[in-house]
Amino acid sequence: MRASQKDFEDAMNQVKLLKKDPGNEVKLKLYALYKQATEGPCNVPKPGVFDLVNKAKWDAWSTLGNLPKDSARQNYVDLVSSLSSSPEPSSQVEPRADEKPAGYETLVVTSEDGITKIMFNRPTKKNAISTRMYEEIMLALKAASEDKSALTVLTGIGDYYCSGNDLTNFTDIPPGGVEEKAKSSHILLRNFVQCFIDFPKPLIAVVNGPAVGISVTLLGLFDAVYASDRATFHTPFSALGQSPEGCSSYTFPKIMGSAKATEMLVFGKKLTAGEACAQGLVTEVFPDSTFQREVWTRLKAYAKLPANTLRVSKNIIRSREREKLRAVNAEECITLEERWQSEDCMNAIMNFLSRKAKL
Amino acid sequence: MRASQKDFEDAMNQVKLLKKDPGNEVKLKLYALYKQATEGPCNVPKPGVFDLVNKAKWDAWSTLGNLPKDSARQNYVDLVSSLSSSPEPSSQVEPRADEKPAGYETLVVTSEDGITKIMFNRPTKKNAISTRMYEEIMLALKAASEDKSALTVLTGIGDYYCSGNDLTNFTDIPPGGVEEKAKSSHILLRNFVQCFIDFPKPLIAVVNGPAVGISVTLLGLFDAVYASDRATFHTPFSALGQSPEGCSSYTFPKIMGSAKATEMLVFGKKLTAGEACAQGLVTEVFPDSTFQREVWTRLKAYAKLPANTLRVSKNIIRSREREKLRAVNAEECITLEERWQSEDCMNAIMNFLSRKAKL
Amino acid sequence: MRASQKDFEDAMNQVKLLKKDPGNEVKLKLYALYKQATEGPCNVPKPGVFDLVNKAKWDAWSTLGNLPKDSARQNYVDLVSSLSSSPEPSSQVEPRADEKPAGYETLVVTSEDGITKIMFNRPTKKNAISTRMYEEIMLALKAASEDKSALTVLTGIGDYYCSGNDLTNFTDIPPGGVEEKAKSSHILLRNFVQCFIDFPKPLIAVVNGPAVGISVTLLGLFDAVYASDRATFHTPFSALGQSPEGCSSYTFPKIMGSAKATEMLVFGKKLTAGEACAQGLVTEVFPDSTFQREVWTRLKAYAKLPANTLRVSKNIIRSREREKLRAVNAEECITLEERWQSEDCMNAIMNFLSRKAKL
Repeated sequence: MRASQKDFEDAMNQVKLLKKDPGNEVKLKLYALYKQATEGPCNVPKPGVFDLVNKAKWDAWSTLGNLPKDSARQNYVDLVSSLSSSPEPSSQVEPRADEKPAGYETLVVTSEDGITKIMFNRPTKKNAISTRMYEEIMLALKAASEDKSALTVLTGIGDYYCSGNDLTNFTDIPPGGVEEKAKSSHILLRNFVQCFIDFPKPLIAVVNGPAVGISVTLLGLFDAVYASDRATFHTPFSALGQSPEGCSSYTFPKIMGSAKATEMLVFGKKLTAGEACAQGLVTEVFPDSTFQREVWTRLKAYAKLPANTLRVSKNIIRSREREKLRAVNAEECITLEERWQSEDCMNAIMNFLSRKAKL
Repeated sequence: MRASQKDFEDAMNQVKLLKKDPGNEVKLKLYALYKQATEGPCNVPKPGVFDLVNKAKWDAWSTLGNLPKDSARQNYVDLVSSLSSSPEPSSQVEPRADEKPAGYETLVVTSEDGITKIMFNRPTKKNAISTRMYEEIMLALKAASEDKSALTVLTGIGDYYCSGNDLTNFTDIPPGGVEEKAKSSHILLRNFVQCFIDFPKPLIAVVNGPAVGISVTLLGLFDAVYASDRATFHTPFSALGQSPEGCSSYTFPKIMGSAKATEMLVFGKKLTAGEACAQGLVTEVFPDSTFQREVWTRLKAYAKLPANTLRVSKNIIRSREREKLRAVNAEECITLEERWQSEDCMNAIMNFLSRKAKL
Repeated sequence: MRASQKDFEDAMNQVKLLKKDPGNEVKLKLYALYKQATEGPCNVPKPGVFDLVNKAKWDAWSTLGNLPKDSARQNYVDLVSSLSSSPEPSSQVEPRADEKPAGYETLVVTSEDGITKIMFNRPTKKNAISTRMYEEIMLALKAASEDKSALTVLTGIGDYYCSGNDLTNFTDIPPGGVEEKAKSSHILLRNFVQCFIDFPKPLIAVVNGPAVGISVTLLGLFDAVYASDRATFHTPFSALGQSPEGCSSYTFPKIMGSAKATEMLVFGKKLTAGEACAQGLVTEVFPDSTFQREVWTRLKAYAKLPANTLRVSKNIIRSREREKLRAVNAEECITLEERWQSEDCMNAIMNFLSRKAKL
């Protein structure tokens, strides 16, 4: 049953009584859902680039696209309800044992119904990938490739799918300086991408929200990508003085043609879920309100197909390209190592981190 | 007096009007005499040992040694004359004469307005491809590649375009058992797909209704695909313990990206005509009510373009990939030979056939 | 006293402001002195004998032998100084100074806001590409590849983007006859397409109106393509007895799948801007009424991204394919040389020109 107007008004009152500031991210979301529920899709002109606050609000509202008013109302009520009941945000250093089996700090991994599910679990960091998280994902993929499940799924906990490489990784500069950091990052990245290239079973992304950077570029190595209509796909490499990775310099032009791929990878155009689907990066888009239910119903059905046949069929499609993809990965990482030491990149990261420090 | 060129042409026309299939033995002899009469002694390299059809034709032609052209012409005329007057062919097949010119049992083939039209003609079997039909399609493609038409079209008679491989093919197990059956099926399939890879003129599918299995996967080798909005595209390989063929493991990811290709080829998602068109597998979709009229109007216009230019342009697009496609075809067939002997596959086919037996 | 770095840079800026074309002889000398001043003695391999433009430049540079860098700088400054004060260039071309800087007869080239804009300027000929225009586009691309702009844009002045190869080029038959004409056209075309394959910065097409023939096929080599909804995309090669060029026999099937590519390239289907966008040939379509405003706003924003990063990212996407594309280009040109001498082609061009003569 959908939330009534009364539920909606109750929720609005509850917001005023919240004991803790829910943070800007959540407040923007509440703002957006309120506008969508009362006025429908965003109908005001985009604020100027320097009008930061209004720009953020406009973005939040626009992101909801054509979400129906009653879905927005329902989501608003659900979000407020979750805020009122959530006790304390759990620090990522203190994992609750029931949620993080196998000793993962940054992931939750489960396996049932023939599906191994690897969930990014740094929601307060928008699931940005820390150095530790890179390593844990590699371990989890290794384990999933050897377990009995038919399918392996990656998804995010919280609002984001994954916001990409955690730029604070770059602040942890070793005694060898930037050059050594660039070199070790190169090796980590290459090994990480390699795990996706070589993964032997159907690998599926359930993109529950915005995806940024490497979490986008890797999608070309997945066998199916299901997205909520709330998801966006953004690879702002050039603004950061960086260049594409995850084999995207090869897979994206192959999937969508170079005229579309360049706009994403070189000019940093952000795609909606619908656009990403039209261009073949995403298999299918679902309304956010029914996303989880529809996707898992479908995946459970697929997981009942004969597991060995699935593996054979995936590999007849993929194995032919593996050598090529390994070469692409190596080449992209060499270029990135160079980029990371460029002025363009250092300036961009410095700016990003100093802006962040001021907030 | 020796047969004149005119007698020879009359005899060729008479062959097309034969009311009964003269059988493969006679057809091979006609082929050989025709080649000898027009080109002289066999002058082409011997086909590979597994290229059965071409091997048989090559053998027949070679057998004629240095028989002079005019003797060959005379023998051809005599042989046709004997066929036309012979009471009953020894073949056990009983084709209806009006529907099956040129002796095809499972096809109707016509040629007019610059278009050779190969029609699947097992409507009561949803145009499922029997072993005989595989062979006849190969013969029809060979003939079409050598005739004067500008375009070659494949389409289905009845409600279906084609329901794919006839699973009852698997019940005809030879003395060598499943292993031998898998081996011979491998060879048949590889030769069949090869005919599509090598076809030298624009090859067009007119998909009048549902398409299943290999009739779908082959579409990546066609130069244009027009579909009725009643058509669907379904490759339920995994449920049958099988893996993709027809070069689809290569062509589909190239056409639609791997996120869409995997859902079809590995998870067996059925596509509507509109979806198949959006994903580039289909050139254009037409309402069923006007489908035939619109498509043939367009094709007749295309067939008026200079035939040799069409052939050259097709080949500059396609020839670059032929070697790759041959390797893909070989690889897919090796995998399938293995799959056909797997438990997954045998269980699935057993289930299918026993369900069918109960009906 | 020797010319300082500052004098040198001033001289470079002065060159851009020259009101009259100094002629190819002088431009080659400027090129050579610039290279010598910045890179020292000629250090690149000698271009092939048919690569006329690069050969001329290489010759000019090589001629300077071991001239020291600072002498080259001084000579450059002196030469520019003499040009700025010289009354009239000796060139027989009579460009209108206000519209045609740098002496282009068929183009207008500007450079501001980080964008070099190469505009086709034969609006009364629907911007058909004459032999001279092929050469000027090559020169303009060469210059753009070396200037400081971040992006290079091609667009058309007037109603058309570009109507393709000017068929009257075929009427200028040299003493060697059609065979010699076909041979020289082959070389011109190959060099022309090569410039697009090798272009090192993001290359963008702003398709303001109908595009025909080679102006369409080249789009697969652009990094982004923005189109007015008035634009159409038409490659009527078969009707002219010709075959696809501009690497389209490779890029188009890659971008849109062969079922869509063949209909364009072989059957000459004309696409609307919307269709071309759905098929990945076009990045985005805008209403004609706001086209120029929206596109340039976007491009100016993109041009603010770090120029070197853009160049690196373009090349990681493109460089991997360059060798392949060069081979495709060579192959397409060989086929076309043959086509141009075919009856199909000669008849078609004769018809076209005689129809034109009657108008």
